[in-house]
Amino acid sequence: MPHIALPLDQPGIRGAMAFRPETAKPLNELVEVLLRGPHSLTPGERELIATYVSYLNDCYYCQTIHGAIATAHFDGNEDLVKRVKADFQHAAISDKLKTLLVIAAKVQKGGKNVTAEDVANARSHGANDLEIHDAVLISAAFCMYNRYVDGLDTTQPQDEPMYRERGKIIARDGYIAVSKTYLPEKTAAR
Amino acid sequence: MPHIALPLDQPGIRGAMAFRPETAKPLNELVEVLLRGPHSLTPGERELIATYVSYLNDCYYCQTIHGAIATAHFDGNEDLVKRVKADFQHAAISDKLKTLLVIAAKVQKGGKNVTAEDVANARSHGANDLEIHDAVLISAAFCMYNRYVDGLDTTQPQDEPMYRERGKIIARDGYIAVSKTYLPEKTAAR
Repeated sequence: MPHIALPLDQPGIRGAMAFRPETAKPLNELVEVLLRGPHSLTPGERELIATYVSYLNDCYYCQTIHGAIATAHFDGNEDLVKRVKADFQHAAISDKLKTLLVIAAKVQKGGKNVTAEDVANARSHGANDLEIHDAVLISAAFCMYNRYVDGLDTTQPQDEPMYRERGKIIARDGYIAVSKTYLPEKTAAR
Repeated sequence: MPHIALPLDQPGIRGAMAFRPETAKPLNELVEVLLRGPHSLTPGERELIATYVSYLNDCYYCQTIHGAIATAHFDGNEDLVKRVKADFQHAAISDKLKTLLVIAAKVQKGGKNVTAEDVANARSHGANDLEIHDAVLISAAFCMYNRYVDGLDTTQPQDEPMYRERGKIIARDGYIAVSKTYLPEKTAAR
């Protein structure tokens, strides 16, 4: 049971967002820009960063839904997502993305852990400032989303087909569009 | 020196936001709703939660600027802010706020640390669901803001009078209004 009265038919962050649509709006806008906005990293690559950080934070709902979205972006390749979580240095991703995952993992433990060497290494593999910035902010943002979802003890059904189906829909339509299906129409402050 | 080319005349999160106005917009909207929107907790009380979490995350910029904003909301009472950071159980704040700070401190370490007993204790001191929700989300959000500011190694001048003055301005005008003084006017995606 969640710690507060969240709508039980909406799992994970959806229940929390339906409870508080005033904060749901910027939370959805942030994830939309970070993971789907115009970028030199593909949406699939950015979803892998989000999935990996959610895995490090041990958030079942977030790592499963973002893993499913990443899978949809990579043509159903679930093994790739599993490999990134278990051992990304040996996954079939670019060396540049590996250096960004190193930075993301440092940020997950605390921002001060990122070193000039980590950043120089990312640059030497072709990462630009925007990619380094977004690796830091995606990791930081999922340290928020994960704590939000687990801190309220939201409902997190162990129903992989549900996440798989929903992952395809979000990969196709995006966060803001899908949020309109579960957020109350009126989002005025209470 | 910051890890990427941030505008050096803008310290802390302002430099990062000026670099990436597309994400600055939802980041400012989120903090505006959470810390200044209509609420049963005062803006000062919510700034104390933000300051305390930033202190736990050892983020100099965030704990100093939010401490200064809290101070402005509490009529210049810097000692109150210092006491909350050092030993909030003996600070001159309500018992309800103390129970919310306990929850915020648990979330800072990880969402799963919040227990049903923590929530029941907050309720027994008069906290409602919205206050519990926001204590969780304010803490989670500052785990993001703090990692963002430190993960990019932003400029964080040790200049207390600067924070004090700026704290007064943000307490008066709010985050979104003040952000317009340092964000580029055009925030279209690059």
